[in-house]
Amino acid sequence: MLIVGEKINGTRKRVGEAVTNRDEDFIKKLAVEQANAGAGFIDVNAGTSPDREPEDLVWLVRMVQQVVVVPLCLDSSSPKALSAGFSEVKQMPMVNSISAEPQRLEDLLPLVSVNACKVIALAIDENGMPKGLDDRMTAVRKVLKATQESGVLDDNVYVDPLLLSIATDTNSGEMILDTIRTIRSEYPHVHIISGLSNISFGLPKRSLINRTFLTLAMAAGMDCAIADPTDQELRETLLATDLLLARDRFCRGYTGAYRSGLISAAS
Amino acid sequence: MLIVGEKINGTRKRVGEAVTNRDEDFIKKLAVEQANAGAGFIDVNAGTSPDREPEDLVWLVRMVQQVVVVPLCLDSSSPKALSAGFSEVKQMPMVNSISAEPQRLEDLLPLVSVNACKVIALAIDENGMPKGLDDRMTAVRKVLKATQESGVLDDNVYVDPLLLSIATDTNSGEMILDTIRTIRSEYPHVHIISGLSNISFGLPKRSLINRTFLTLAMAAGMDCAIADPTDQELRETLLATDLLLARDRFCRGYTGAYRSGLISAAS
Repeated sequence: MLIVGEKINGTRKRVGEAVTNRDEDFIKKLAVEQANAGAGFIDVNAGTSPDREPEDLVWLVRMVQQVVVVPLCLDSSSPKALSAGFSEVKQMPMVNSISAEPQRLEDLLPLVSVNACKVIALAIDENGMPKGLDDRMTAVRKVLKATQESGVLDDNVYVDPLLLSIATDTNSGEMILDTIRTIRSEYPHVHIISGLSNISFGLPKRSLINRTFLTLAMAAGMDCAIADPTDQELRETLLATDLLLARDRFCRGYTGAYRSGLISAAS
Repeated sequence: MLIVGEKINGTRKRVGEAVTNRDEDFIKKLAVEQANAGAGFIDVNAGTSPDREPEDLVWLVRMVQQVVVVPLCLDSSSPKALSAGFSEVKQMPMVNSISAEPQRLEDLLPLVSVNACKVIALAIDENGMPKGLDDRMTAVRKVLKATQESGVLDDNVYVDPLLLSIATDTNSGEMILDTIRTIRSEYPHVHIISGLSNISFGLPKRSLINRTFLTLAMAAGMDCAIADPTDQELRETLLATDLLLARDRFCRGYTGAYRSGLISAAS
């Protein structure tokens, strides 16, 4: 199970201030703590205005690379910012994100296919935010047709089914789980990724809902999450789920994590 | 989701002592705290030697019924003890348990069918402890053939797929989830119940494994658990899972539990 560390995101107030003020120490601390907690990629999102974003993203990339060797997930809606960030990376990054929107494919697919990098593909097309399983799968099939035709390996594509809050529609959880199962069945070689926290928007004790959804989504076929790797209870849930789904041979991951203190002794 | 409260079990040292010493207060406290925490049934298991068990089970039934109105789950391998307990109950109990073992069916099926009570049916037959999915389903089909032929409604049967520890075989979790899905698909009207804690035997931080398995098993079709209803984190996981599986209309169960303090405010 791959965790893309979500904490360096300029749309969060404190991180946005650190980007504006060039607060190196703050950004580096977030990078190090996520790397130490086992993040497989570190997301970097400047979250600034379009004219500032390329420069700010480049700064973030430089800061993070000064302190960790974990590869980056370049997160922007601006192709210009993504290209600028790409020119600075020392390891092949993940690009966050493409979708089935024609302009977005035209802008970004060449970058992704030429560099053979990993890319997050959102289940959305030119018709706007999908409502259910069917329009999500329509978008997924469009974007995967495009990536495959450009020679991008399915193994490099991380499909995001786009989580909706349970508070908006109590069927959202089941619908997303159905979408994950459908993607997994139609495209056995792609990865499936989600920004976990969207599922609990507007509800109390969000971390409980997020980690419970992690278990259900992993059983349905999700193999990556954009999340906070320093969340101890989330990490414990992930280890226990791997154990229960026969993905932890001889229980070594679980018992090793317990011995090293990654799983707390408290019940 | 029905919880059968597991705490009054004489095979646990402290409870066994309370049974031997007729420690009314201790037993009554366990009954009240489980009822207050939402147990749908309260399991009573004397855990004493065959000659003592009928009398001890009757005592337990009387003590619990003095303080709570929740129905009982009479838990014994002795038909004599179960009959004795049955004669004392004020509300229709659950019988724990029958199986596909011919002697056990002969001893207990008349009691269950005449009284139209609920009964736990173990996935085991005369060939001994089942190893995998196939021998579990063989036993389940035998015992359900017997209950159906005796006129017991499927809705009164609680099938227990018999959890195995993950520590014994890392495929146990997946095998049990497959068994739950198969039972749910072949017998849509039976209930499926498990003693959760068996899954984590021999591993550290058992409560984490138990509650993570609860989520997976509920998604697979389990609708009852023999567990500790006073375990706050287990109850939180149960509420979050109901929410995510679209079994909590308008999120009322979850948000109501939060407002009333059943879900803790801490992350």
